[in-house]
Amino acid sequence: MTHHAPLRAAGPDDLPYAFDHLDALMERAGLDALVATSKHAVRYLLGGYHFIFFSAMDAVGKSRYLPAFVYVRGDAGQTAYFANKMEMHEHRAHPFWAPTFRPEFWGSVDTMTAVAGHLTGLGRVGIEAAFLPKDGFDALAAGLPGAAFIDASPLLAELRMIKTPAEIALLRAATEGIGAAMRATVAGTGEGATKFEIIDRLRVEETARGLQFEYCLLTLGDSHVRAGSDQRWRPGEVLSIDSGGNLHGYIGDICRMGVLGEPDAELEDLLAEVEGVQRAAFATIRPGATGAEMVEAAAAELSRGPNAACNDFFAHGMGLITHEAPYLMTNHPVAYDGSNASTPLAPGMVLSVETTMQHPRRGFIKIEDTVAVTPGGHELFGAEGRGWTRGAAAMAVQGGGQG
Amino acid sequence: MTHHAPLRAAGPDDLPYAFDHLDALMERAGLDALVATSKHAVRYLLGGYHFIFFSAMDAVGKSRYLPAFVYVRGDAGQTAYFANKMEMHEHRAHPFWAPTFRPEFWGSVDTMTAVAGHLTGLGRVGIEAAFLPKDGFDALAAGLPGAAFIDASPLLAELRMIKTPAEIALLRAATEGIGAAMRATVAGTGEGATKFEIIDRLRVEETARGLQFEYCLLTLGDSHVRAGSDQRWRPGEVLSIDSGGNLHGYIGDICRMGVLGEPDAELEDLLAEVEGVQRAAFATIRPGATGAEMVEAAAAELSRGPNAACNDFFAHGMGLITHEAPYLMTNHPVAYDGSNASTPLAPGMVLSVETTMQHPRRGFIKIEDTVAVTPGGHELFGAEGRGWTRGAAAMAVQGGGQG
Repeated sequence: MTHHAPLRAAGPDDLPYAFDHLDALMERAGLDALVATSKHAVRYLLGGYHFIFFSAMDAVGKSRYLPAFVYVRGDAGQTAYFANKMEMHEHRAHPFWAPTFRPEFWGSVDTMTAVAGHLTGLGRVGIEAAFLPKDGFDALAAGLPGAAFIDASPLLAELRMIKTPAEIALLRAATEGIGAAMRATVAGTGEGATKFEIIDRLRVEETARGLQFEYCLLTLGDSHVRAGSDQRWRPGEVLSIDSGGNLHGYIGDICRMGVLGEPDAELEDLLAEVEGVQRAAFATIRPGATGAEMVEAAAAELSRGPNAACNDFFAHGMGLITHEAPYLMTNHPVAYDGSNASTPLAPGMVLSVETTMQHPRRGFIKIEDTVAVTPGGHELFGAEGRGWTRGAAAMAVQGGGQG
Repeated sequence: MTHHAPLRAAGPDDLPYAFDHLDALMERAGLDALVATSKHAVRYLLGGYHFIFFSAMDAVGKSRYLPAFVYVRGDAGQTAYFANKMEMHEHRAHPFWAPTFRPEFWGSVDTMTAVAGHLTGLGRVGIEAAFLPKDGFDALAAGLPGAAFIDASPLLAELRMIKTPAEIALLRAATEGIGAAMRATVAGTGEGATKFEIIDRLRVEETARGLQFEYCLLTLGDSHVRAGSDQRWRPGEVLSIDSGGNLHGYIGDICRMGVLGEPDAELEDLLAEVEGVQRAAFATIRPGATGAEMVEAAAAELSRGPNAACNDFFAHGMGLITHEAPYLMTNHPVAYDGSNASTPLAPGMVLSVETTMQHPRRGFIKIEDTVAVTPGGHELFGAEGRGWTRGAAAMAVQGGGQG
């Protein structure tokens, strides 16, 4: 197992963003102050820190963990982090850089009451409307009479859109780790292993590589159902394994294909068809091109394939959350909305590019890759194992799924 | 690795609660309907289900995952689960029992708009105020003009307070798994291992036992700082390891002690002093006794110890969340508040009982145990390894932390 020490910015110079950039985005949005309360935004704004105690859940006692990072436009000296009481230990091990650090809270209301006190007199306050609970918002509003509250989520997504070299390195390492975990899982899984067992094994393989497992979507055989179950892997069947896991919050998210035995000619052709769409998308990725151009190139290649009717192309930015800016798909109005489809790609953007074939006879055949935009074009992360990975020979690891 | 298939109630008979009980609690709280949106409450109300895709995070695209379980008092036929679009795969693998299942949503606003439509005409709606985001609440309120919204969190905590035998079995297995993972971690860790490495190793050991790692609080030597760091374990030093991990959501949370070498007489005495407080608390636990009696007995024993000034006793209910009902500590007003301190203990309650010594010279010495109230008294889970666990001999696993 490779150990990766958690990230922790020692000071503003280590942050993945510049205060000037944040100030400019806030000015454009008309914000005097920003209150971030999502785990991913707090992690980003603090420079990598994430409190281990609440890494898997938020609930504690009668309320919840609600970290709050508070920034006042143009006055970084007022930056404050409102934390759970137990985070005083984290501060002793690695002091927080934020000038004000208050590890005093156990819930959403006590935290936000204190935040309101810190912001007294400020009129236009940005919040994360999907990540600030109703009772915490009420406490904030009660403590800031007359203030206006604006959803700052789009601003935060834009702030994170261009990754630093350190962020790119984590995303690359996460992708490579997920890929290696998938290859170990498939190569170590034989006839008769259930989907539940395969998912459990992937969890172990990712954890052993220092990743935090997030999820696994798995199909076997001709099924297109991606949920865990007692379905068993049978000789000749395909396996699609799509998983996300993060390294200090930065997500690796790819999909790879396995087969129990040797792939026949039809399977080779089907994967080549999927691969062709991926390659058509990659070929467009360079600074100045747009996501819309990529989607168009992929769609054109897809339409030429013999199985076009069961194929789908999808792309999204990624980083601290799955599916973040740039938002590229104009046909997904609610969650993604394509608002960056015409934004020129720029070095430091990281894209997830996925082509899915739902073949009626052979099953779910999908490749998902992560690609970073570089000054010279693009870099494909974790390129190993993009063909058919063979499952374990029946005699070698009968039953599979042992961790 | 032992595989544990996820829980999934096939129908109302498999649920850990009865609709009659829920109806009675809702009537007392004056609620016509209940909208649960926390992961733990949705998991409980659905009967064990938890969507793997969002097990580590909530954010996706421009909003977030917000599962919503909706129940109308006295009319279980109107029960509905509003889910992420991807949960249609889960339904195909294992159909949800709720009569209405709508896997159509990507965010908090679209979900809660649909929930409002389902509840049209109902006047008094229970919500989870700390787990319903501001924008989702606004969508709910906009769709239910004239409705009153009441925080149903206390009701839900009370509903979950008495565990079923199936829940008890999971809590027991989780505790035993955490204990075994801790013993393997300590026994496999030698001189020079860092706190970060030890925490990583525990994560691997818990995962290999089918648990979802939640957190680890760790001290080495004379330090009382429980955060991860590059501090290394040295011969003769103590180690305190406090970790939570869950099995299908049900949490194991214990603290055990290690020493690198053999414990000297003083260490044996110190741990015996802590153990004495634990035993004094256990001795009171039986149906009809109260948490207040337990706290009092522990405090009395604690005060007789030679290190009383640096010792602390704490207890809390546990189950799907760390620190849930019964709430036992009257001196922790915000998060716990002791509202169940005088509630008679009853079979099926599960308590976490913890005694902490912050010794100025020898370090942080703590035992935390999980105890279930049984008809005949109590059952201590995972009783193995409550004394000093020895670290690896220096030559055997120099450096420690390998996964």
